[in-house]
Order: sequence, then C-alpha cells, then structure tokens
Amino acid sequence: MEIGFIGLGNMGAAIAINLIKGGQSVSIWNRTATALKPVLDAGAMAATDAEAVFAAPVVFSMLADDAAIQGLLLDSGVLERVGAAGRAGGKRIIHVNMATVSAAFAEELAQRHADYGIDYIAAPVMGRPDVAAAAKLTILAAGPAAARQRVQPLFDLISQKTVDCGERAAQANVLKLAVNMMLVSAIEAMSEASALVHAYEIEPKMLIDLVSGTLFPGPVYQGYGGMIARSQYEPAGFRAALGLKDVRLAIAAGEQQQVPLPLASLLRDSLLEALAHGDGDKDLASLGAVSARRSNRPR
Amino acid sequence: MEIGFIGLGNMGAAIAINLIKGGQSVSIWNRTATALKPVLDAGAMAATDAEAVFAAPVVFSMLADDAAIQGLLLDSGVLERVGAAGRAGGKRIIHVNMATVSAAFAEELAQRHADYGIDYIAAPVMGRPDVAAAAKLTILAAGPAAARQRVQPLFDLISQKTVDCGERAAQANVLKLAVNMMLVSAIEAMSEASALVHAYEIEPKMLIDLVSGTLFPGPVYQGYGGMIARSQYEPAGFRAALGLKDVRLAIAAGEQQQVPLPLASLLRDSLLEALAHGDGDKDLASLGAVSARRSNRPR
Amino acid sequence: MEIGFIGLGNMGAAIAINLIKGGQSVSIWNRTATALKPVLDAGAMAATDAEAVFAAPVVFSMLADDAAIQGLLLDSGVLERVGAAGRAGGKRIIHVNMATVSAAFAEELAQRHADYGIDYIAAPVMGRPDVAAAAKLTILAAGPAAARQRVQPLFDLISQKTVDCGERAAQANVLKLAVNMMLVSAIEAMSEASALVHAYEIEPKMLIDLVSGTLFPGPVYQGYGGMIARSQYEPAGFRAALGLKDVRLAIAAGEQQQVPLPLASLLRDSLLEALAHGDGDKDLASLGAVSARRSNRPR
Amino acid sequence: MEIGFIGLGNMGAAIAINLIKGGQSVSIWNRTATALKPVLDAGAMAATDAEAVFAAPVVFSMLADDAAIQGLLLDSGVLERVGAAGRAGGKRIIHVNMATVSAAFAEELAQRHADYGIDYIAAPVMGRPDVAAAAKLTILAAGPAAARQRVQPLFDLISQKTVDCGERAAQANVLKLAVNMMLVSAIEAMSEASALVHAYEIEPKMLIDLVSGTLFPGPVYQGYGGMIARSQYEPAGFRAALGLKDVRLAIAAGEQQQVPLPLASLLRDSLLEALAHGDGDKDLASLGAVSARRSNRPR
Repeated sequence: MEIGFIGLGNMGAAIAINLIKGGQSVSIWNRTATALKPVLDAGAMAATDAEAVFAAPVVFSMLADDAAIQGLLLDSGVLERVGAAGRAGGKRIIHVNMATVSAAFAEELAQRHADYGIDYIAAPVMGRPDVAAAAKLTILAAGPAAARQRVQPLFDLISQKTVDCGERAAQANVLKLAVNMMLVSAIEAMSEASALVHAYEIEPKMLIDLVSGTLFPGPVYQGYGGMIARSQYEPAGFRAALGLKDVRLAIAAGEQQQVPLPLASLLRDSLLEALAHGDGDKDLASLGAVSARRSNRPR
Repeated sequence: MEIGFIGLGNMGAAIAINLIKGGQSVSIWNRTATALKPVLDAGAMAATDAEAVFAAPVVFSMLADDAAIQGLLLDSGVLERVGAAGRAGGKRIIHVNMATVSAAFAEELAQRHADYGIDYIAAPVMGRPDVAAAAKLTILAAGPAAARQRVQPLFDLISQKTVDCGERAAQANVLKLAVNMMLVSAIEAMSEASALVHAYEIEPKMLIDLVSGTLFPGPVYQGYGGMIARSQYEPAGFRAALGLKDVRLAIAAGEQQQVPLPLASLLRDSLLEALAHGDGDKDLASLGAVSARRSNRPR
Repeated sequence: MEIGFIGLGNMGAAIAINLIKGGQSVSIWNRTATALKPVLDAGAMAATDAEAVFAAPVVFSMLADDAAIQGLLLDSGVLERVGAAGRAGGKRIIHVNMATVSAAFAEELAQRHADYGIDYIAAPVMGRPDVAAAAKLTILAAGPAAARQRVQPLFDLISQKTVDCGERAAQANVLKLAVNMMLVSAIEAMSEASALVHAYEIEPKMLIDLVSGTLFPGPVYQGYGGMIARSQYEPAGFRAALGLKDVRLAIAAGEQQQVPLPLASLLRDSLLEALAHGDGDKDLASLGAVSARRSNRPR
Repeated sequence: MEIGFIGLGNMGAAIAINLIKGGQSVSIWNRTATALKPVLDAGAMAATDAEAVFAAPVVFSMLADDAAIQGLLLDSGVLERVGAAGRAGGKRIIHVNMATVSAAFAEELAQRHADYGIDYIAAPVMGRPDVAAAAKLTILAAGPAAARQRVQPLFDLISQKTVDCGERAAQANVLKLAVNMMLVSAIEAMSEASALVHAYEIEPKMLIDLVSGTLFPGPVYQGYGGMIARSQYEPAGFRAALGLKDVRLAIAAGEQQQVPLPLASLLRDSLLEALAHGDGDKDLASLGAVSARRSNRPR
C-alpha cells in the first residue's frame, strides 16, 4: 500500500522502516532533512513537502507535540486542502496520529478531521525507540472502526498488539497519558525508596533487585530501577523533559474533567526540579538524583 | 527443634503451622487465647505465658506493632529475665522478630537483646496471609550471621526465599518499609490513573488490563489493580489501616535520617482520607475510592 | 481625557465608573451588551465595537483570560489595524491591560504591541470588586516608563497605590500571580488548620479570631478566615474557579523558568476538588469545605 | 507568691525573669546548670532538683518536648510523689506546662496529673524569645477553671493576653499546633513565591514589601518575609528544627483524629530538606533557601 509518513525522529524512523520492511511503499517528510537519511536508505521516497505526503491514502504522523501538529497540519491549511482534494477525487484519506497529544487537542483534531472529510485515528504507542525498532510496540487505537480495520494490517507490521480504544480519539490519548503517569510514579517511588534505604547504608541495587524479583517484575522496575541503582542516567531512553510533557498533559486532562491528581502534581514538581538541575535531556530515571539531592546524600 | 512462637494473628498462625508441618515442635502463646485454636489443632503446645515460650532455644514473634512488643517483651521484663536465665544456663536464645517495626525501634531492640545476651534477628516478611500459608513468603533477614545460619532451615520451611540484609537489624526493617512504600505508591498511581480515565468514559479495567499485560506485570498491579477496577475493596488482603502504619514508619525512618519523602507523605494523607471515610478495615486498594471521591465520580 | 474601556465585568465596570467620576470621557464595549448598563448610566458612551474603542488615545481592558484577549484583540486583527491607523495618524495609542494573564502571554502581548506600534502597559490589580468600587485597588504596573507616567493620573483615580514593576510587562503579571498564590495558600492553611481544631471540638472561629488578632492581622485572614469559620462560601468575593485559574498561571510561570512550586500544585488539586464538588462559583474560601470533607467532618 | 520554674532555655528564662520582676518568689531548676545564671542574677533561688521545685504551690515548666517531660516528671516518679505529698499535706499543687507538646501527650498528662491530685494547666505560648522578654506573649490556657483563675495574675505578668481554651488540656495544644502550622505555611508560601518572582528577575524584597503593605500586614510576613528577601537566616528566632517538631506534632494530632493535612505534610518535607542541608539551627525562614535550591537559583 502507498503510505505517507511525517515526523521521523527516533520513534517515527523506526516505525517507518518497519512499514517498509513489511512491503509498504512509504513516502516521507520531516522538518529537518537530515533525519530522513536512514529511512531513505531503507527504501523510502522523499516527498517535497508535508502536503505532498497526503497523496497517499494512509498517512502516519509522529510529531513532537500539539504545537507541531497545529502548525504543520492545521494552521498551514494542509489538512483542509488535502481533505478537500480527497473529497473532490472521491477518496477518503486516513490520518494515523501516533503522537502523545493532549486530550483537548485530540478532541479538536478529531473534529477538524471530520470537518475536512478525513478519517482520524488516534494511535499513541507504548514503547521506547528500541521497542519500536523491534516492531514490539503496543498501539492504543481510537477512531472510526472501519478506518481502524483498514490500517490494522499496517499496525501489525509495527507492533505486537493493538488495543481497541473505541471511536473517541481522546480515549486513546488519555489512556496513554494515564499509563505514562503510572510509569513516572513508579520511577518516583523507586527514587524515594532508594534515597531512604541509602540513608541506612543499604545499596539501592539491593532494593531494586528485591522488588523486581518479587512484587514488581517487568521492564519498568528492572530497567529504570537499574538506572537509579547505578545512578546512571545516560543515555536517555525516555528523556525527563518528555516525561514532564506527558505528566503535564495528564494533569491538563484531569483538570478538564475536574479530576484532582495530586500524585501527578508531585511528579511534575520533581521532574521540574530535575530540569532545573540540568537533567532534562537525561533519562526519566534521573528522578533518582532529585531524591538523592533532597536528602543531601548524592550517590 | 523446639521452637517458641508468640503472636498468632493471620500471618503468625500460618507461619507457625508451616513450622509444625516441617516437623518442628512448637509452643505458642497469644494475647487472646481464641487465636490459638487452629495452631493447636495443627499440633502446637500452649505455653502458660509469653515468658514460658522462651524455654525454647529459638523463638519467633509476629506482634502487631512497636507498642505491642515494647509492652509484652521489654517493659514486662520478659526479655531481660529470659536472657539472664539463658546466660545462667549457658545457652543463648535466638529471637526472630517477623513484625514490621520502626527503624528506630529495630535499633533499640537489637541493642536491648545484645544487652540481655539474646541473639536478635530482624526478619520482616513480604507476602500476605495466603502467601504465608503457602510457605511462599520472602524473608528479609538481618542480625548476627551465625544465628541467621542456625535458623535458616526454619526459614526454608516457611518461605521461598531469604534475603540476606546483613548484620544490622534496622536494615531489614527499612528495606521492608521501602518495599511497602513502593507498594502503596503503585496503588495510589492506579487509583488516580483510574479516576482520570473514568472521567473520559474509559473503564478502569481497560487501563489495568493494559498495564498489567505490558509495563507492569506481576501480582501488585494485577491484584490490587483488579480490586480498583471492580471498586471492590473487601475482603481485605492488606488492610488500609496497616498500610497507613507502614507508610508512617517509612516516613519516620526517613525523618530520622533527614530524607524527605514527599510521595510517602502524599500516600499517608490519602490513606488517612480512606480511614476518615470508614475504609480502614478495607483493602489498601480502597485508595481507589479516595481518588474517585475527590473527583466526585464515585464508581 | 478620552479613554476607551473594554470588558465590563464586576471589576471592569467598577473601574470604568471611577474613571468617569474622575472626569474622564469614557467609551465602552463589552461582549455582552447587558453589562454596559450601569456604566452607561454613569455617563459612558457605547462604542460600536471593540475596534472603535481604540479611537481613544488610552484604552483600558479587563478581559477574562488569555483566550479572550487573543481572540478579541490579536486573532481579530484589531490591534494590528489600530496600531497601523495610529502610526498613519501620527499618534501612539496606549493599551493598559488590567487582566491577570499568563507570564508567557504577557511577553507575547508586549512583543505584539511593540510590533504594532502601540504602548503596552501590564497593569494587573489587587483587590476585589468592592475594593475596585472604592477606588482602593493596588495596581502593579509594568511597561514603557513614559507611557506609564502618562496614565498615572488615571491610575490615581481608581487606586490607592501604583507599584512600579519596571519595563518588562511579564514582571507585573508574575508579581500578581505570586501574590495570588500566597493568598490561596493562606486560605488552604486556614482550611486545614480549621479541620484540625474542629476534630478536637474547638470552634474554627476561635482559631481564626486568635490568629487574625495576633500573627496574621489584615483582610485575608480575617475575611476569608471568617467565611471558613462560618462555613459560608456565598456570595463569592473571589470565585474558586478564578482562583484556580490564577494558581494554574502561577504554576505555568514557574514551569517556564523551571521553578518547582509544590505548594501551588497542592492548591491546584484542592481547588480542583472544590470545583469537582460543585463549588467553582463559590468563594475561594470553599477550600474550607474541601478540608472538612477530606476528614469526613462536614461543618 | 512562691513559684517553681523548671526549664530555663531562652523562653523559660525570659518568662521566669518576668515573674520575678512582677514580685514573685521563684525557685528554679534546669537540666544544665549554666542556664540558671541570668535567672539567678535576676533574683531566683536555685532548687536542689526538679522535685524540690514542687515545694511551691504553683510550678511552671517549659521543657523541650514530650520526651523531656516524660523522663523528668513521669518516669522519674517526681509528679507521683509530689502529688502524694501534696495530698498528705492537704494542699493541691498547680502545674502550668508551657511547652508545645503533642495532643496525645497532652491528654495523657492531664490524666496523670488528675490521678496524682495535681491541677494541670496546659499553657503553650505564642511568641518568640524577644516577645517573651517583653512580656508580650499570648498564652493559650486550658485546664480546670478554678486553677486557671488562680494563676491568671501570674499570666498577666508575662503576657499581653490569655486565651481561654476551656477545660480540656489538648485543646490548648492543638490550637498552638494549628497556629504554628499556619505560620510555617506562610513561610513556605513566601519562599515559593520568592523563587518564582526571582526567576523573572524581580527582587523578592519587592514581593514581600508589596504583600506586607497590603494583603498581609503583621509580624510574620514582614519578619520572616524580610529574612527570605535578604536570604539571611541567622540568627534564628525560631529554629527550623523546632518548626519541624511542631509541624510533626500537628500531623500527629491530625492522624489521631483522621484529619488529612496535605499542606502540613508538604511543610514537613520542605523542613526536612532544610535540615538535610544543614539548616536545622537556622531560622524557619530558611525554607526560602529550599525553594531557591529546588529551582537551582540560589540567592
């Protein structure tokens, strides 16, 4: 199938390459051209601009945040024009947005796409770039059922699992935000618990090994926990600055529906403290350094 | 081996029965006699009082909290007398304290036992009563190495694993508190995340299934998460009031070493809110009801 | 002097009327015409639209929030056109924005006005509608010094004091946000302290009288404290929903500069809880009801 | 009147001297004898031990905390003996406890004194040492009405005001804790607000001057605020470590009655962070340094 792909950062590039490996014909565009290289090498075609990408019947995008999407696709008039062109040509484009956007913007995007006659699928993913490269993502998909059915074979090329989040786009995004809030919570809990045991001359590694071998198996407690135990926060798998973005979006989603989220607020402030101390580009696990600094026992 | 056992609540009784099943000769005592029944039925002998239990060379205790131990064993003079008797008789008793006590009290207990010539092993356990009954506990053991070695065969009868926490008693207790703080954190995270998705008309069950099948496998997210998803907080596996006790002890341990634990503080207040609303005897998972109530969307 | 005034809610109307009383010639516009009545009765002239108001050399605006200003003055092209018209006519308009806006938007507004050749004065005020009516506001003014000097006689008609906040617009707004964050903090402190003493059968009134007669004199502890002591949250002098807005803006201002504000975060969640329970239109003091509910001791 | 006085730290000494100045005959005792000097110089008599002080019909004490009182007066048997001696001699002693103790201990003290036949007056005070020296304290007095009436002339010598807190001792202590919790809240609010404005290149002094001249007059915002504005935390009027003690007692009082106090919890962690960074003996206002450090903008 002809597929368009916009936004080729670490995540986008890995996904696009898997689509190509799966036999799809992929045309790509990115704000900065240098990012295109590995995907072109894998067999993609370079589109002249974002709008040209929408010549394909299915377009994936993986852009940084609400503002990037707003600027590139809405304010620019791209979506409006390609929707009109589609309607004129009797075909209905599908836009699969894999970015983690705010709940409010998800609702707005769904509405705008509907207005323009484009099928909109919210498809935020769970998994870091290495997981994306291994085609092991979990996709949280919401949008018109028929459209989702049509892209499912594509999702199967890039993920291990698609979770059906229903028709309402915001639901996929809110689920994603809730998951990431839980992720950051687990890291904060490990950070504080590590600071506590360290003050009693216990190696944090002992705590992390203990819990990840019993109550808390799985990649989060083991992976992020290991980074905290080693006080090693680079290279970043999931940047602290991005984690802050997601926590902020979770808080905003809560605020929109009047749901107090005191834990998310605490996470926000801890992440902000990490950023204030220059750790925004380090891994989320650098919350471990925040807890250590608060207790004045750097590790 | 002759073993004494003091404190036969749900946990203590299950452990004592496993010692008996393992071929040990167990004499028991409990503040309220009714609790003795199932253990006597399993083959234990009733001691006349707590002091008589210390006729055995190894005594386990599983008492409710610092105050219970203080009253029964220290203020009463029991430990002082049995230590003196042991020294007089040329034998050194081992006391295995399985309760979750404060770090400060753990240090004091270790000192007092040393003063009285009794080997003190701090051996708090991870696992709820059903885990204890299945002899699948994880024991966090700290104390004199020789004494720990001597009781290891007994630990093997009641647990699946003993974690060596070194010579200093408080370390085992602090590790336990750190683990339970992480446990309550995970529950609070699920509670808030569930309140968030619920406000967007997503079933919390969907969130819990999603995370426990991906990022957060294991018993905590599945077990407590399931209770939150079903808004079913009884019967209690781990009572909210006990969870509050453990969080309070973690905070106190942090305070002693000047370690701020803002997340633990948040958990304390949430649990207190649960208790204020009558849920102290319900499961820890009733934090789910706290989050739901805060957002005025009871489930 | 000819003055324009846009936005005639409780605050705006009171201020506009004082300008009229001070002998100024005031033309007004409001999104909903009904709000104009009392100001017209006081002697104002109705402008045909927001743009017409800028025929005056000095225009005050008191609009609800960033979005209202964005829509009415920026997106609409009003400011751009009136700036161009001013330049064409060789006169430079002054726009005095009395609204509490975000720090980021304050910076943007300053830039946009500069681009359009309009002098921009950020002039958020301290004081509730009754204070505005009594011309007892405190004005926090930032912007070009010459322009501020020119409008000072007008400020004197509506306030008891103007605080010189320098040339940078955002500084006036950040100061305002910091003050309001302190205001809400004081209310939360009284709310929690009242819940505490109430649980010991002490009348919150006793606490409030005690502190406002000793450590904490002044209008906040006495006024809001009195509402908490009486559990009477209507009529609202400062609506909880507006308080939440200001706390949110303080948090956002902090985030922009990587300043963690855990207390502001706590206030946000408490206010959100007030809103979730239907108290958004009640007074800020309804934080007292939040604390009471958390402890399950409604007063 | 003959008066005994135990505990002559900064506060105790200042109060005792005012009693002497008021014409009373005061016999004193202190754990460390060096502290007696200024009070002896003022005309006091040195008692041989704490018990001897109770030869007087009215005894004031101002000891450090629950543990000091427990050790010196209860565990030692002093109160029991002097109560018995009083009954034997047909006279009833009054003990005025001016320390800030926990709510739980206040209840226990009241009970124990009643058991021993001693009238117990809880009389915690508001005011720092300089206020005590100026006889301008505010006394929060609770206990048997007749006894309170008898010591009122003494209170008048050392204070500007006595607040009648009823018969139940704990009420005076809880009121005191509630007030101090509000005090620390105000300091935290100023600290965070100062960090916020500082990040926008506004002098914190400007903020403090603004609020203490408008919304928040009075000694707290001006005094502590001034210290924050100057980043000058020594000499300490009210030590951070003591502030932490009071906040901890407020939290404990809340916990006893199941009153969540999230703001107090936040204050606890901020103060603990101050202590971890070596500021325990500096003034409470050193919360200002905590906020500045979190944002990595030391002042």
